[in-house]
Amino acid sequence: MSLSVLRAMPEVRVVGFSHRESTRRKARQQGVASEVAETLAAAVEQADLVILATPIRTFEGYFAQMSPLLKAGAIVTDVGSTKALVHHWASKRLKKDVHFVGSHPIAGSEKQGLDYARDDLLIGARCILTHTAKTNTAAFKAIRTFWQTLGCKVEQMSPAAHDRTLGMVSHLPHLSAAALVNANRLEDLYSAGKGFMDSSRVASGPANIWVDIFLTNRKACVQGIDKLIAQLERFRSAIDTDDERRLEKLLEQARQKRQRLIEYKLKKKELF
Amino acid sequence: MSLSVLRAMPEVRVVGFSHRESTRRKARQQGVASEVAETLAAAVEQADLVILATPIRTFEGYFAQMSPLLKAGAIVTDVGSTKALVHHWASKRLKKDVHFVGSHPIAGSEKQGLDYARDDLLIGARCILTHTAKTNTAAFKAIRTFWQTLGCKVEQMSPAAHDRTLGMVSHLPHLSAAALVNANRLEDLYSAGKGFMDSSRVASGPANIWVDIFLTNRKACVQGIDKLIAQLERFRSAIDTDDERRLEKLLEQARQKRQRLIEYKLKKKELF
Repeated sequence: MSLSVLRAMPEVRVVGFSHRESTRRKARQQGVASEVAETLAAAVEQADLVILATPIRTFEGYFAQMSPLLKAGAIVTDVGSTKALVHHWASKRLKKDVHFVGSHPIAGSEKQGLDYARDDLLIGARCILTHTAKTNTAAFKAIRTFWQTLGCKVEQMSPAAHDRTLGMVSHLPHLSAAALVNANRLEDLYSAGKGFMDSSRVASGPANIWVDIFLTNRKACVQGIDKLIAQLERFRSAIDTDDERRLEKLLEQARQKRQRLIEYKLKKKELF
Repeated sequence: MSLSVLRAMPEVRVVGFSHRESTRRKARQQGVASEVAETLAAAVEQADLVILATPIRTFEGYFAQMSPLLKAGAIVTDVGSTKALVHHWASKRLKKDVHFVGSHPIAGSEKQGLDYARDDLLIGARCILTHTAKTNTAAFKAIRTFWQTLGCKVEQMSPAAHDRTLGMVSHLPHLSAAALVNANRLEDLYSAGKGFMDSSRVASGPANIWVDIFLTNRKACVQGIDKLIAQLERFRSAIDTDDERRLEKLLEQARQKRQRLIEYKLKKKELF
């Protein structure tokens, strides 16, 4: 993230901060920021733009801590994977002359931490911006330009639509991957092939980050699990009753839907 | 498959056959066999080894048709993804002086057909051989040498153990991927990122092939779905009750188990 900014906007001063001393030291050694501040105050009080990239449930506390420190007119955004609660916290905790816009850059992988930092991660990536009726229009446009300058393709959604949609296409697959791994005995997993590895890849993501995602998008996650279980039960019933025609129909439905998805992604040049 | 044989054993005569005229024509044009026979009889009556690579539920019929045509001492194998029923059909339908050994090369992708034929697909791939107490030892050894010559790493299992294990690590992920696609509305899928694409990749596989896999491994598939649903319900309950500690434990269990799997696969040089 910070490497992308340093590459795309060499005139911008990027100040990094982590509450962890070891992370600050490593960030300095690796030169991922123009400067690494020792305190939150030092990091944000001169900032025109603050980007939160911590586990989502720390945001409310950071908003509260930052609020008195920020300049009037400063913009705050985040890179979290859920948005409705974040907007709610921002409106509750940030003072009125500071502007919040939600950002969700869809990039990265199951690997996390400074060791995997890259300056090209955002090029061509989608970034969903979220706003409410109260969002400051100039701040929204500034954030849009910011992500576009980093190479992102920007979309916009309401926080609720974001959470419902991402709940289905991102949070549910993660739950399904983790459940699939947990359903298997380790000794059976040694027989896994590429299909299993791909199906379960996201389950290698950091548990603490994902706890926050699920717990800040509970309704969509629970509804998503219910929908997935309902679909699994349709397969179960077709197999259990030896219903060839129904089973083929269910599989063909999935194959064709995924084919339309692939065609869409190819057209949008979003296939990886 | 046939291209791998032509490459690794240039002295072997590879005779291809498909019941479909269009496939025979294409196979001739692409030169994927030394010869493409016009009838099943012409394809198998001189054969030392017959390899069935059709949907699994056609095997019993082919065994019955081939049986009177085969030379004494001929070996029959297959490349199907389930094994218990196949062994049962072979012992019922093949005459006693013909030897059946089950083969399951774990290679290929969600793409099928002659257009995706490659002569290096089997190099380094695992191939599980299945045998029963009745399996002819010399035939088993010949089949083992055959796959090893093509570059495969050969393992052996009983048909029952094969079907139970593959039911969990291959058939269940396929069902889970298809259910995940079917649980989503197409308009939401357009927001899918790499996580969803990987989690659902196998759902693009050919429906008719997978119908046969599931319907010839019904017990393991139904049990696998039940196990997956039970795990999904554990996640659902932890999220619904806002139980951070239990949720983190479930996610951490999946992450660590997959980490051990990755380490095993790296050690065995099976990571793709």
